Amino acid sequence: MPTISNKGRHMPASPIRKLVPYAEDAKKRGIHVIHLNIGQPDIKTPKVALDAVRNHNIEVLAYSMTEGSEEYREKIAGYYAQKDIHVTAKEIIVTTGGSEALSFAMGSIMDADDEIIIPEPFYANYNGFATAAGVKVVPIASSIEANFALPPISDFEKLIGPKTKAILICNPGNPTGYLYSKEEIQQLAALVKKHDLFLIADEVYREFTYDNKQHYSILQEEGLEANAIVVDSVSKRYSMCGARIGCLLSKNKDVILTAMKFAQARLSPPTFAQIASEAALETPQSYFDDVIEEYVARRDVLITELKKLPGVKVAVPQGAFYCVVELPIEDADDFAQWLLEKFEIDHSTVMVAPAAGFYATPGLGKNQIRIAYVLEKNQLVKAVHILGKALKQYNSNS
Amino acid sequence: MPTISNKGRHMPASPIRKLVPYAEDAKKRGIHVIHLNIGQPDIKTPKVALDAVRNHNIEVLAYSMTEGSEEYREKIAGYYAQKDIHVTAKEIIVTTGGSEALSFAMGSIMDADDEIIIPEPFYANYNGFATAAGVKVVPIASSIEANFALPPISDFEKLIGPKTKAILICNPGNPTGYLYSKEEIQQLAALVKKHDLFLIADEVYREFTYDNKQHYSILQEEGLEANAIVVDSVSKRYSMCGARIGCLLSKNKDVILTAMKFAQARLSPPTFAQIASEAALETPQSYFDDVIEEYVARRDVLITELKKLPGVKVAVPQGAFYCVVELPIEDADDFAQWLLEKFEIDHSTVMVAPAAGFYATPGLGKNQIRIAYVLEKNQLVKAVHILGKALKQYNSNS
Ligand SMILES: Cc1ncc(COP(=O)(O)O)c(C=O)c1O
Ligand SMILES: Cc1ncc(COP(=O)(O)O)c(C=O)c1O
Repeated sequence: MPTISNKGRHMPASPIRKLVPYAEDAKKRGIHVIHLNIGQPDIKTPKVALDAVRNHNIEVLAYSMTEGSEEYREKIAGYYAQKDIHVTAKEIIVTTGGSEALSFAMGSIMDADDEIIIPEPFYANYNGFATAAGVKVVPIASSIEANFALPPISDFEKLIGPKTKAILICNPGNPTGYLYSKEEIQQLAALVKKHDLFLIADEVYREFTYDNKQHYSILQEEGLEANAIVVDSVSKRYSMCGARIGCLLSKNKDVILTAMKFAQARLSPPTFAQIASEAALETPQSYFDDVIEEYVARRDVLITELKKLPGVKVAVPQGAFYCVVELPIEDADDFAQWLLEKFEIDHSTVMVAPAAGFYATPGLGKNQIRIAYVLEKNQLVKAVHILGKALKQYNSNS
Repeated sequence: MPTISNKGRHMPASPIRKLVPYAEDAKKRGIHVIHLNIGQPDIKTPKVALDAVRNHNIEVLAYSMTEGSEEYREKIAGYYAQKDIHVTAKEIIVTTGGSEALSFAMGSIMDADDEIIIPEPFYANYNGFATAAGVKVVPIASSIEANFALPPISDFEKLIGPKTKAILICNPGNPTGYLYSKEEIQQLAALVKKHDLFLIADEVYREFTYDNKQHYSILQEEGLEANAIVVDSVSKRYSMCGARIGCLLSKNKDVILTAMKFAQARLSPPTFAQIASEAALETPQSYFDDVIEEYVARRDVLITELKKLPGVKVAVPQGAFYCVVELPIEDADDFAQWLLEKFEIDHSTVMVAPAAGFYATPGLGKNQIRIAYVLEKNQLVKAVHILGKALKQYNSNS
């Protein structure tokens, strides 16, 4: 028998993968499962994007340009200019989702056994891309008490060694909802310049900032041109996750040249999705205003309700649509499974993502869960109500 | 300055990348460049596929299932059953092009420094995927004199060592157009079973076989279930390269389980493209009959014309839509550039792909080019005419 690779063996599965069969079982038993576990927005995709695809007049569905069509990249540059981010079409590679931009970034700047420092908790799939690239993730803990702010720079410096090639941040953060301040970005900028590191910023939630806070992109930071790599995506911005379009941005020519070689190997990003994404750039500001208003309302309801639960701690998110919640339990994996397997109120239960999967340090986040507030307010209220009752019963059982 | 990775530095660029600026220059000078260098078919995409996308009624463009929708995979299994390939939906992972299936296959079965044996000349991007995965390509030469048939099994055995994990074939071949016989597949099957290796077959050109030859898939070979991995794609089959849909097939559960972890990290394949690809399965047989008839006619014209040129050697392709041509010159790179830079007849010239980029062994294929016959017959005749004149002039100059 031929055998699979060590890499393949070590590839992490999704943090909720183990729970999926329990959720399916619950549904088979007639239980309504409220999904707090997924980052798939329920928001409608802008009509202008969907219509553009409906009205396509393609006869031969050919490969597009490897880096995405010139026209689309010009328009993307225009979008960024509005955000005070100044890039040219040549500094943009259109990718198959932000996911592919992350792969290209890691491959372009890191070899096997190189290290990348990432504040934890972080988007779980960073582990997957790192493992696939043979790269080592070095976590640096941020804490719920500090609302998941940037860890002290001195903590980063302790972790920087000869193998360190990059720092990766997610801004605003999944799963933390934390939005880095301009000062935090500037501290990171000074750090990476001092140590000749790359700074990769996953800014796929850029549009989702609340309480009048402004997103500050690493590409707005002067003097960081050689170090900065931005990962972006249309998935969440326009609620079009199924398109699979994102991009990689850098003013470092070597990075673009190298990432282009990775891009060349896979030929081109998907054409229909580029048509939709190009049209999506015409989405009126009112769409975003409405969406932000909705997310803020959801967040407020969610946080208010959660804070009513005894022993529950929650970081207040200022961006994205996730929050990390600490529960008065020992093992969120066990609790999440129990919710699906053993618990119900009026034939309803909730599915949550245990937060341990978002930490790289073993043991961290064991009593935390991630909640995605991509459901309507009344569903969120109901979900937290169920969670409260469940916690009581779970804790009285054990 | 932070520096890019060695991997990134070693990532091969496309074999024709260096020629692109010369082609652009020629066009600027008003020269009509006939492209013999690209594998982008001019054939129309089936209307049923394009219409399905036009008629979509999506409101929220959500992530699809990581492995592709259940319904689509069931239908793919149905397609294979018609080809006497018996797989279930669970043995299929829908990927973003055959390209991604190749990446997943390599990552799932090979670690850094592992070796994969590939008959050369081969599809140049295999180098890219191998480099990205840190894997070493071990080439085994096939020859134009033998029409690029499978090299002797004893030659393979000389190359198999402790690091060897897999053999990769492309059937029918790009760039060779060679179609492996059932006997050759059986020889390979015995070899990989003897040495516990995987056999990856890139069968993206399955549909394109000529002269009443039948394609024999490695998945038709009994007893090879644990070893066989098939890479497939809709790109060429339905002339829908821009969709970016392919799939990975294996009856080895570990392979599917492991590839699923790679797939999970990138979330899902593109949704619109899946809609098009699912509908494409309804393409009537008459479409393929017409396409095959067209390619056979083009091939016949091309080969007939090429054989008229003195000193030109050509392997007769029985599948796909490429052929490798040996020219009475020393350096096809130089000749290809010269064609674009210095040559014209009535304001026309041709662009060809130097074949050296399809070989891993330095020096091999230096006097060969690859021609893709994805152009109409009169264009092919004209192109060969230009090539003939060019060869005369090029050789009298030097
Ligand atoms: C932080 C973060 N980065 C990247 C991605 C990848 O998204 P996509 O590949 O759909 O652009 C996600 C998706 O959830 C995410 O949460
Ligand atoms: C032999 C071979 N394999 C795989 C591919 C990848 O094609 P795609 O990713 O479009 O499916 C190609 C494209 O030209 C090819 O020629």
